[in-house]
Amino acid sequence: MNADYINPFIESAVSVFEMMLGCQVKRTGAKVCESFAPQFDITGIIGLSGRATGDVVISFERELALLATEALIGEKPTDLSADVIDTIGELTNMIAGNAKASMEELELKLALPTVIVGKNHTIRFPSKVRPIALAFESDMGYFNIEVGLMESACVEVG
Amino acid sequence: MNADYINPFIESAVSVFEMMLGCQVKRTGAKVCESFAPQFDITGIIGLSGRATGDVVISFERELALLATEALIGEKPTDLSADVIDTIGELTNMIAGNAKASMEELELKLALPTVIVGKNHTIRFPSKVRPIALAFESDMGYFNIEVGLMESACVEVG
Repeated sequence: MNADYINPFIESAVSVFEMMLGCQVKRTGAKVCESFAPQFDITGIIGLSGRATGDVVISFERELALLATEALIGEKPTDLSADVIDTIGELTNMIAGNAKASMEELELKLALPTVIVGKNHTIRFPSKVRPIALAFESDMGYFNIEVGLMESACVEVG
Repeated sequence: MNADYINPFIESAVSVFEMMLGCQVKRTGAKVCESFAPQFDITGIIGLSGRATGDVVISFERELALLATEALIGEKPTDLSADVIDTIGELTNMIAGNAKASMEELELKLALPTVIVGKNHTIRFPSKVRPIALAFESDMGYFNIEVGLMESACVEVG
């Protein structure tokens, strides 16, 4: 995967957290990986298609998900309720949407986010994709972003 | 969600199973649902975007996933290996891709499939989406398909 496609996601995560949640974020790590076991409790996934095709997977620590929901709706939920699902779907959508805006040449469109709840699962990309995983630390807790994006020519030929 | 968008997925699932796996399929149920807890062990998700936006979630019984992989690669895996992940990603991609071809007016593009492994998880759509869940029975085992698709005008206004 083209590493140029990574910075837009880092910048987007930092700016969405600051703008939407008033929360500072720093990136703590990055690695190329074959598969991905979210360490966290709630994960948003959103598909991208256009001149490149792929997915963005963002996994949030439970406490971060609750605090982010509180920042948006004014009340802290006690469990991973529908409000939390919507918050995670919306943050996933905004982080991918902002990043997309910095990669106009790819003419990306977003699908709808889906949200996975539960610790005992792994999320895998097709074996031909080598996603890049980014680890982040914020004032509200930890999250990570995995981006797997292939330029469409590769998809058609591959 | 427009129910006209459901038949293409049913027809596509029947034809992909027959063509790729030599396996007969019948649909056993359909319901509109707010969220979706896959009863099964391995689930493919793929995003769609264009004049409508959404996701297709296909959850497979473990034994079906193993038999489908055997039908494609000639050897039955003993666990949910990389070959099984790729088989489920590819079946998800083909079922969504075939259905897309019957809905040309929506000008849909597919994202890449991701595959979730693990029983203790639920997959949720944003609360504004009312997906339709379809249950299927095949010679190789059970699976279900959930389709959540919104016409893009609704997404922009909503």
